[in-house]
Amino acid sequence: MREELRVPTHLTPDKADFSKAMAWIEGEFVPLDQARIPVRDLGLMYADMTYDVVHTWRGGFFRLEDHLDRFFASCAGLRLNPPLDRPALARMLAELVLRSGLPDTLVYFACTRGTAVPGTRDLARHLHHRLFATVTPLILRGQPEEMRRGLHAALIRGVPRIAAASVNPEWKNTHWGDFHRAGWAAKEAGHDVAVLLGPDGAVAEAPGFNIVALVDGELLSPEGNVLRGVSCRTMLEIAADLGIPARYGALMPEDLARASEIFLTATSCGLFPVTRLDGAPVGDGQPGPVTTRLLNTYYDRKNAGWKITPAESIR
Amino acid sequence: MREELRVPTHLTPDKADFSKAMAWIEGEFVPLDQARIPVRDLGLMYADMTYDVVHTWRGGFFRLEDHLDRFFASCAGLRLNPPLDRPALARMLAELVLRSGLPDTLVYFACTRGTAVPGTRDLARHLHHRLFATVTPLILRGQPEEMRRGLHAALIRGVPRIAAASVNPEWKNTHWGDFHRAGWAAKEAGHDVAVLLGPDGAVAEAPGFNIVALVDGELLSPEGNVLRGVSCRTMLEIAADLGIPARYGALMPEDLARASEIFLTATSCGLFPVTRLDGAPVGDGQPGPVTTRLLNTYYDRKNAGWKITPAESIR
Repeated sequence: MREELRVPTHLTPDKADFSKAMAWIEGEFVPLDQARIPVRDLGLMYADMTYDVVHTWRGGFFRLEDHLDRFFASCAGLRLNPPLDRPALARMLAELVLRSGLPDTLVYFACTRGTAVPGTRDLARHLHHRLFATVTPLILRGQPEEMRRGLHAALIRGVPRIAAASVNPEWKNTHWGDFHRAGWAAKEAGHDVAVLLGPDGAVAEAPGFNIVALVDGELLSPEGNVLRGVSCRTMLEIAADLGIPARYGALMPEDLARASEIFLTATSCGLFPVTRLDGAPVGDGQPGPVTTRLLNTYYDRKNAGWKITPAESIR
Repeated sequence: MREELRVPTHLTPDKADFSKAMAWIEGEFVPLDQARIPVRDLGLMYADMTYDVVHTWRGGFFRLEDHLDRFFASCAGLRLNPPLDRPALARMLAELVLRSGLPDTLVYFACTRGTAVPGTRDLARHLHHRLFATVTPLILRGQPEEMRRGLHAALIRGVPRIAAASVNPEWKNTHWGDFHRAGWAAKEAGHDVAVLLGPDGAVAEAPGFNIVALVDGELLSPEGNVLRGVSCRTMLEIAADLGIPARYGALMPEDLARASEIFLTATSCGLFPVTRLDGAPVGDGQPGPVTTRLLNTYYDRKNAGWKITPAESIR
């Protein structure tokens, strides 16, 4: 008998208390709807910024150090200097979560180039980079019934992912024009989500999701032209612990077409099963046994405190 | 004897009165530094927005209809519905300029997807798109001495322009990560400005500039993988009026290397001569006669009211 997907049921939009959502900006903790930035911020004007998103589970950050590693690597790559150093940033994020009183949250934090200096396009002259963070209730992308149905994905061949040579996807960035364009195309054709190819024709990623496929008994996730997602790494690590072969490597459209299982990974859901690709069922059209086992183990481990840092321990 | 470049001298940063800078946002006219948007605006979070920049000259908009054409085409392409229609937008921009009291200005206007709806990534559910506009004193990029020196440009081969198949450059957008990355590389190698190639290896554009080259007696400006700039079109039209052959067409790096004149075009300067390319002089290393004649004619025509719509006539 097939193991059943176990998904928390308390993280629905109707149960989320958005009145507790908060932000930190320029040294102040404020209700989320009061958090604003100048319209001349270069993060808005020219997408000159980076960000990261970590989640808390029962009051603790999941893999905080991994997210901080990536955030500071993105900042270094983009020559952004956040006005808080790493320990101060961690304390601020912890304080933000604790002040909200929310146990299960999404914590978004970003650094922009700051407000445009009139009359120059020389980025080196923009010295006052801007940091801000928000905390919102964690809404699970994928309630149990949605998880069991799974996502219907479409490979969108006409809109390649922005090339890594143009914009390095490993520096987490807001250049989502290709994602949005592919997403509209997928929706119009009756699918739920777009999967994009890289300029080389290999499978890349979906908007805000890494993709993982079970091909010939091995879990495979693309390594080119993608952001290295923390949730993706988590699932590959859990797989390895469970004795399921798992690695990063080139994933071609024909591999995806014959995959017995496919799932997408993101901080907001851990993973989300894909049950249809281009209209055809993946495997038997239900979330597969490997997908199910990974997600259930993910929750079991988080509930046991695996890779969790209590916010209170940071303050 | 060579005609001398004539450039206005009253538009320097030190003469600009930024205390008069203003913005319009959500129905209100406010001082620029009070114009802010929520940090959860999707224009900031995912560069999901478009914008345009028009300038005023002696109190009148230059080619306002062309900029409005492009803005609404960008909105349509990106499925953005600005909350003001075209006549109302024009009236708002005119009112903004008149309230500032500034005669020579840059007027920036943008439409974003609006504030994120919690728990969804479905763009069709984001219905309240956000419009805002700012007016700032026109600072001329390129004072007379800078114009006479010209820009030293570098072809940056390692950072191609984002492919049009990924993000359509004709829908004016904020995806500038490639521009910034190439710009840092150019600056570090001692040049002033980067010129980017498209993924096909043809010359594309510079950050915020179209490029035009005089090759074999003909002005040539790239048509692939670029925003169709209004200033570029203006210069090609003036050239045609003056009997100088001018057209859009593929411009290869080898064409650029043997061009006798090169210039960049932008709203903030009309055109800017390029006097060095990859360290070597362009022509004799001074702004060429065609470049000079075009810029001087541009100012003569603007001063005579060519394609100028007085802000007062719109209110």
